[in-house]
Amino acid sequence: MDRITIAHGAGGVVMQSLIKDFILKNLSWGNAEVPLEALDDAAVVDGIVIKSDSYTVKPLFFPGGDIGRLAVSGTVNDISMLGAEPVALAMGFVLEEGFPLSDFERIILSIRQTCIEADVFVATGDTKVVERGALDKFIINSSGIGRRHAALDYNLSVVRRYRNLETRWLLDSNIRPGDKIIVSGTIGDHGIAILSSREGYGFDTVIKSDVAPLNKMVKKALEVGGVVAMKDPTRGGLSNALNEWSQKSGVGLYIKEEKIPIREGVRAACEMLGIDPLEVGNEGKAIIAVVPHMAEAVLEAIRETPEGRDAEIIGEATDKYEHVVLETIVGGRRLLPPPIGDPVPRIC
Amino acid sequence: MDRITIAHGAGGVVMQSLIKDFILKNLSWGNAEVPLEALDDAAVVDGIVIKSDSYTVKPLFFPGGDIGRLAVSGTVNDISMLGAEPVALAMGFVLEEGFPLSDFERIILSIRQTCIEADVFVATGDTKVVERGALDKFIINSSGIGRRHAALDYNLSVVRRYRNLETRWLLDSNIRPGDKIIVSGTIGDHGIAILSSREGYGFDTVIKSDVAPLNKMVKKALEVGGVVAMKDPTRGGLSNALNEWSQKSGVGLYIKEEKIPIREGVRAACEMLGIDPLEVGNEGKAIIAVVPHMAEAVLEAIRETPEGRDAEIIGEATDKYEHVVLETIVGGRRLLPPPIGDPVPRIC
Repeated sequence: MDRITIAHGAGGVVMQSLIKDFILKNLSWGNAEVPLEALDDAAVVDGIVIKSDSYTVKPLFFPGGDIGRLAVSGTVNDISMLGAEPVALAMGFVLEEGFPLSDFERIILSIRQTCIEADVFVATGDTKVVERGALDKFIINSSGIGRRHAALDYNLSVVRRYRNLETRWLLDSNIRPGDKIIVSGTIGDHGIAILSSREGYGFDTVIKSDVAPLNKMVKKALEVGGVVAMKDPTRGGLSNALNEWSQKSGVGLYIKEEKIPIREGVRAACEMLGIDPLEVGNEGKAIIAVVPHMAEAVLEAIRETPEGRDAEIIGEATDKYEHVVLETIVGGRRLLPPPIGDPVPRIC
Repeated sequence: MDRITIAHGAGGVVMQSLIKDFILKNLSWGNAEVPLEALDDAAVVDGIVIKSDSYTVKPLFFPGGDIGRLAVSGTVNDISMLGAEPVALAMGFVLEEGFPLSDFERIILSIRQTCIEADVFVATGDTKVVERGALDKFIINSSGIGRRHAALDYNLSVVRRYRNLETRWLLDSNIRPGDKIIVSGTIGDHGIAILSSREGYGFDTVIKSDVAPLNKMVKKALEVGGVVAMKDPTRGGLSNALNEWSQKSGVGLYIKEEKIPIREGVRAACEMLGIDPLEVGNEGKAIIAVVPHMAEAVLEAIRETPEGRDAEIIGEATDKYEHVVLETIVGGRRLLPPPIGDPVPRIC
């Protein structure tokens, strides 16, 4: 394989190998508290949380959101997942010549609305235009900086009542046997909403994307305390996020399939298309690992927020297995492997 | 005009109106020390300098550089222009399906080399792939954070020996009558190098891009002291940068054309193509405004660096004019208006 394929950008094992063989190999020497090679949701340098994501979603407008809402939410969420408060965003726009100004304005207004919702602002930006045919309409890069969350030290002090924890941030490598795994709501909504809004798919029910900033929900969880890790299951879905946790923390994860909340319409669409909903990307969901004694209290606090009302405890970390093991609805057990790619390309 | 045109991304007055009418109108409420609406080289939030730029240069490899060197240099330079030290970068890659992995590696190695040169590192990143035809090969977004430069307070203390200055950063609005304007080297090299490497142009001499990180040259200037503003004349060239200064500082700028360093090959190419070299973008040059008494000393320090060896004092700020006035080589005077667009699209 000597050329870039769609799978290289799909959040699964092919993308991981591209990142390791080309990017980490050549670029990971920086003196960061949470460095590039951690491949976590964001990096930490001199106490500043920093994150960058490019958005190539197709179509630009979809049920429940648009590329602007997605760009703000994605960056806010990645920064939040480390236990930080997002402070400011930097937005890079790349437009195709001929793009309607009315659509551009609609997206700017959506960015505005989502920033207000998340209590962040755009501090700087950049606009580039390429000639017709050189780009499919519009790409946004959204970068952001964040500060250590006011409630993070309290949260970690609660963790330390129960066990040792060396890190100062909520990292993918923090999980230990016994920790409970919460998912903040229904899985697969975003990817299926994108898919269903593309031409040629005629589903009975309109599935709306879950795209939303999660920083207010995260705040509630940290104020309860006991959270050891958080991750937003975007490209590669729940399946990829859980496997990253298992691998980086060196623990098994035992997940009960029947506890994973999935909307009926999403389940039906996935069955029709032969897609595993656990591999479908989400843009308004988090998985949250909590020390056992605090899991119910964190779950309750999350359920009181609009973004977390369908939250469930879906399983726990264990030293009985080395990977992610799914207890299926029919009672069997199967390995949940990391996805190779993403069943739905260009969802973010 | 209801659609995006090439001029909307070209750094001239059409782009300025897009930014004002759509972006600033809806997104400028943040509580930043140097906010979005300053439209300066970078923003400052909570003492952190932040900048984001997307790079759509065509071709990806050109004499003197490539998109990787450009992305690192561009962000390093914009952060430096405020009087900050760049600390870390965040890199967002968007690739077209089918892009050769060997070219990808070559660009990653160039990013590595330029980071080492500038003494920065990549802290985080993101990779997206779009299907064949949805993008012309490869786009990089480079974002970065910086800290107040160790020598900035000393530099400003030197400024204050001669006159009052309220701001804590090197802003476009800091220039006052009498300040001398230095350009750090020859003008137009980058844009003409890009143009000459595109198909169909057969110039006699190979013109190399000036693309380079300028933070080490900036450090030398700050250590001398007396610098009030710096700006890198990228899209829209020297002409646009000087007009932005004049407008934001509310001063006239009197520039002597004969003092502006331009390579013979660049001048010849511009004449052949009917392009004004002052409107052609640069990627390794800065204009530097200095209080009059310190201008010669700053010039000397800059000339001792490899990036600044061709530096010249090209003029000064004045209250005799309101705009940018060029004293032409033949002795006349003419208004130097801001460019409408950029004569060479996709140079960065």
